This record gives sequence, structure tokens and C-alpha cells, in this order.
Amino acid sequence: MMKLGVIGGGQLARMMIAPATELGIEIRVLAEEDGMSAAIAATATGDYRDVDTVLAFAKDVDVITFDHEHVPQSVLGALVHAGIAVHPGPGALRIAQDKLVMRATLAQIGAPQPDWAPASSRDDLQAFLDGHGGKAVVKTPRGGYDGKGVRVISAADEADDWFDAFAGEPILVEELVDFRRELAQQVARRPSGEMVPFVVVETVQRDGVCSEVFAPAPHASEREMEVAAEIAATIAEGLDVTGMLAVELFETVDGRLLVNELAMRPHNSGHWTQDGAVTSQFEQHVRAVLDLPLGSPELTAEAACMINILGGPQSGSMSDRFALAMADQPTAKIHTYGKAPRPGRKVGHVNATSDELEDAVYIARAAAASFA
Amino acid sequence: MMKLGVIGGGQLARMMIAPATELGIEIRVLAEEDGMSAAIAATATGDYRDVDTVLAFAKDVDVITFDHEHVPQSVLGALVHAGIAVHPGPGALRIAQDKLVMRATLAQIGAPQPDWAPASSRDDLQAFLDGHGGKAVVKTPRGGYDGKGVRVISAADEADDWFDAFAGEPILVEELVDFRRELAQQVARRPSGEMVPFVVVETVQRDGVCSEVFAPAPHASEREMEVAAEIAATIAEGLDVTGMLAVELFETVDGRLLVNELAMRPHNSGHWTQDGAVTSQFEQHVRAVLDLPLGSPELTAEAACMINILGGPQSGSMSDRFALAMADQPTAKIHTYGKAPRPGRKVGHVNATSDELEDAVYIARAAAASFA
Repeated sequence: MMKLGVIGGGQLARMMIAPATELGIEIRVLAEEDGMSAAIAATATGDYRDVDTVLAFAKDVDVITFDHEHVPQSVLGALVHAGIAVHPGPGALRIAQDKLVMRATLAQIGAPQPDWAPASSRDDLQAFLDGHGGKAVVKTPRGGYDGKGVRVISAADEADDWFDAFAGEPILVEELVDFRRELAQQVARRPSGEMVPFVVVETVQRDGVCSEVFAPAPHASEREMEVAAEIAATIAEGLDVTGMLAVELFETVDGRLLVNELAMRPHNSGHWTQDGAVTSQFEQHVRAVLDLPLGSPELTAEAACMINILGGPQSGSMSDRFALAMADQPTAKIHTYGKAPRPGRKVGHVNATSDELEDAVYIARAAAASFA
Repeated sequence: MMKLGVIGGGQLARMMIAPATELGIEIRVLAEEDGMSAAIAATATGDYRDVDTVLAFAKDVDVITFDHEHVPQSVLGALVHAGIAVHPGPGALRIAQDKLVMRATLAQIGAPQPDWAPASSRDDLQAFLDGHGGKAVVKTPRGGYDGKGVRVISAADEADDWFDAFAGEPILVEELVDFRRELAQQVARRPSGEMVPFVVVETVQRDGVCSEVFAPAPHASEREMEVAAEIAATIAEGLDVTGMLAVELFETVDGRLLVNELAMRPHNSGHWTQDGAVTSQFEQHVRAVLDLPLGSPELTAEAACMINILGGPQSGSMSDRFALAMADQPTAKIHTYGKAPRPGRKVGHVNATSDELEDAVYIARAAAASFA
């Protein structure tokens, strides 16, 4: 039997378990601690920053992949040196791990993106603000997620704490893009080169966290869909990404697509594929990292919608609400991650499909509301 | 978190893992031995006929359900006595465990079935043969599966070995039904009474083993579909079945439906629901035994097809054929059970859906053929 090792025990690892088990691939997880989302597949518990822990975990699997992009380059290098197949590889992950490296690399391959610059001082920020109408976005190069490490500024002193924290290393400053909406384009890529895109979707963020996803992106033209897919393919190939790549895009008020963020793993913007596509992003990731032929990304209905469950019930557990949600919406597909409710925390999501997007949205929102 | 305990580590337990994990229900399996199909969820290994083993496994779960119907009544009784919720319960399982009891019970509730009788001797068989054109089917009351324990006879001495083996206990003799085809009707039923049927399907058996399933059953009239669903509902309610019930039916040459066999668990005739219905039979079983509201049984396409992989490759492992099957049929949904190939053994299946049944059949057969 093929054996897949996943570093990290969060919900993305958890959601690889179902398709791996269905296909007949043994999945093993290195979890950070006991009782994490992917606990059922956890064959080891330990620190992913510790070389010996990771090497011991990896020695008996065919391929190593990831629940997150935070494994240090030194550990990734040791895996490769030990002859272990790692997907995505250290070279690609290095770009995902540092937003300044990402911007520089995207510039090299000609991917469309907001104006950006490294900034090491107030003077650098002031110069950028002066050139961009007095507003900008600053980002810490590393350690950000779900809106953390991102700040809109209109004065050069608003990032002083980060300059202190990063001790002279530059931070990233970007143009504040005037956008109509946010989109996400996913593509799967095998080590041997085959690429298969999913359809471009619209994503809605609330407080910097993905809240809702509509697939396909409503009112997207054929041309826009092609451009989105081309951008993702260019990046996947140019950065040698293996497995799933998500490209978060701004659709500007003048109709251009600009790359906002990258994720080299299954991504929240693709959870709809679990119930709305012939092949889910999790199955596609498993296939891709094992260098197996990719599955069909076709939708199984006209439209699909994903609504995140953020926070969960104020009292009691998620499963206390199953009866309510299931009785109310028998076609809704409920996914929860085995995590305790906590304000703002991603604890689950609901998918729905229908002939009309508005029906899918109604169903998914109604079921998700049962968990509030 | 809700905890579901499954007794038996075969592929039916394995296929409950994906929906339980997606919903966010902890699933624990009592496997017969290490390395079984459901090993990833096995929290205990032992003999399901041993009361202490089963009680120890069951003490920390919310509900006990089953991969098979073979747990002895004494063990089931001990579970109930210890206050553990068991679904399906001992009363229902007793009927599934003994085909003579099943026939007598179906007669009591008026379900349509072939003529039948208990037979304790050659004389009994001769009398039945005389009354039914000189041919009949004999079945051992217990221990049969996948065509084993079933024999067509035309002479009264053809069951002598079984009379010896059953030491004076009667065996079952049935009319050899002149049928057009075989159908299967599944229904889910909660302890609190809610019932949801799936659509009736056509099943094709090869050497007594389920080989192909077509959903919905082609050319079935509305009336036939209603009758099939009514028969299953009558049985589920009459026998107090909880969880999934599968009713295997003969469609006779004169258009009647007669009950052939029952299964009180997810069933091979319902594997198509994993990829062809909004709610799979495995999710529906998990919901039903936990007394959660049942999901929609709607098809996600016009037609679905399931082809069993019987035996598997003559050399090498199942996963050696993934590349071939996946490259050939990117829309096929491949399921393998982590079992070693062996002639005739059920080692996996392929599902496909399409607007036209014949397309789904082509796709599923082609992908399954890659594993031959």
C-alpha cells in the first residue's frame, strides 16, 4: 500500500484522511500534540521543527506533505538529504514562507501583482505612501495567517512595532488595491508536470478570515476564468509547486486580476470541492503529491457554496447542534474539525450545491447558522 | 464529541470512517486482528464473540454499531444489559442472523416473499420439490454470505451434508423464483422512527457475489419504485431495524417484487451512494444509529453505477494500478479496502455518475478493469 506522511495535525490534514482512506492509501500524521483535528491518523506526536522527530516520522512513508507551510528549511533540507520525497519541496515552500521572497519571485516570472517594496524604515514607508496616494498595506514577511500580520496604514509610523520586532529586516509594503471582489484560483500540479485547475471562485473575507466561497465565481467571463487559470499555472510551474496551489486574487475595479497571496496546500477557498466537484482538493492533493494522475475537477452541480463555521456555539460542543442543523437542511454537507469552539476560530464549514447559486448559499448559511 | 463504536474491522467499518471524520464524530473500531480494512480507526483488537472484550471496547462510546451481523446474541444482550445503546438492536439482528427466523418474521408482517418451508429431512425436501416443479433453493439458516450457504437442488438428497452439519436443526428451502432481474431497496431508520429510503437499484450478481449496481434501477416504473420503498419501510418498521437496511428483491417475470435477503448494515448495493447521492449510505448509517436527522438521499446525477473489483491484480498490489486507472478515467471514483488481492475477494469498487447510465457504466467498468 502507498503511504503518505503529513506533517501537521490540523483540519487540512484531517480532511486528507477521507479521500486517502477511500482510495486505499495509508495516511500517517505527525501531529503537534494529542487530540488534534487529524488525531485519528496520528502515528507520531512531536515538534515539526525538530529534525530527528521529523526524520523518524518520515522514514517509512513514500511521500511527505504538509498541513501547513511552517516546517523550517533546515528540516526540509534534512528530509531531502535523507532521500525522502517531499511535496511541495523546500524551494517552493521557501517562497510561501516569506512574503518578500514571494513578491520578488512573482515579479521575476511576470505574474500580475500589486505594487510592492521592501521597507526597512519609516522613510521607506513614507516614500511608498507618497507614491500611492497616502495609503498602503504593510505585512510581516513571515508568521502571518488569517489576517494576522497585515495592516492598512496611512502614516509611516504605524509599523514601528514591526520594525522593532523584525530587528532591521525589511517588512513588505504593498499598494492598497481598489478591488471589486476577491477571487481564488486553485491548481494541482504533479512532480512530473501534469496540472489540473479547479474553476475560479469568489471568496468573501470577514475580519481577514475566509467566510464564504461561491463556485464558480458569479458573473466571471470566460476570459476572466482563463486569465485566472493561466496565472495559477504560470505560478505553479514557475515556482515548481507540487500538490495543491491556491492563488488568492484581487479583481480590481478596472477588471484586472492581481495576486494577493499564495498557499501551497489545500486551502479554505477549495473546501467546496469536497461536495461540489468530482475530485475534491484533498483527493487531488493526495494524488498530486504521490505523482498519480489527477482527477476531474468538474463541478457536480451548477453551483456550490461553502460557509465557514467561525467560533462555534457559545456553550456546549459542535455536535450538540447536529440535530438542529441536519433537521433544518437535509441536503447540507456539514464538516467539523474536532476542535473546541472559541470566538473567531475555524471549527468547521458547510457545503451545499444546487442548480442556482442562491439556493446553495441559502442552504449552507442556514445550516452554518445552527452552529452559532 | 460524539463517539461511535463499530464492531468488526472490515470494509464496511472502513467506509464509515470518511463520513464520521467529515462530520466530526469520533469513530472507534473493534477489529478482529491487526491490519484489517478499518485499521486506521481500530482502538481495540479482539474477538467479537468474547463478552469482556466487547464490553471493554463499548464502555466509552455513545452507540455501538456493526460491520457485520455475526455478533452473538449473548454478547448483544450483555451490551444492552450494561446500558449501552446498540443499533441495530439484538431483536432485529436475531432476524438477520437466522434465515428461518427471517422468513417466519417476514410472513408475520405480510412482506411478499418466495414460498418457503423449514426442512429437517429428505422427506421434507421431497415434499417441497414435488410442490414446486422439482426444483428449489436450499439455504443454511446461519453463516452464509456472498453465495455461500445457498444451493439450487433438483433432488432431495442434495442437502444431506447440511442436514448432517446442522444436526437435526431444520434448514431453509425456498421456491426457485423465475425472475427478470434482482433489485435492492435501502432504507435508513432512526431509533426515534424517522425513515428515509434511497432509490431502488438493479444489482447484478456473478457467482453469488454482487458485481454491478445501477442506480436508479433502469426502466423501473414509479409504481415499482413505490412498492419497493414500501416493502423496505414495512420491514424496517416491522422488525425495528435501526441504521441502514438493505432489502434484496427479485423482480419476477410477472412483475412482482419478492424479498430475497436482508442486510441490517450498509450494503454492497449502496456503495454507489458514496459518489452518487447527496448523503452516502455510510453517512446515513452513522446518522441513523446516533439518532441524528437523516440526510437527503437524492442522486447528484441522473445515473450512477458501481462496479466491484473482485480479486484484484494477479501480481503486485492494488495501488500499483492506480496510475493506470486514474489516467484512463479521471472521473471514476476509486475505492480500495486495504486488502491483499485474492481470487474472488472483494478488494474494492469503482463508482461513476453521468447523465446517461451507459456512460457511467462504461467509465466504472473501464476503471475497474485496470485492477484485473
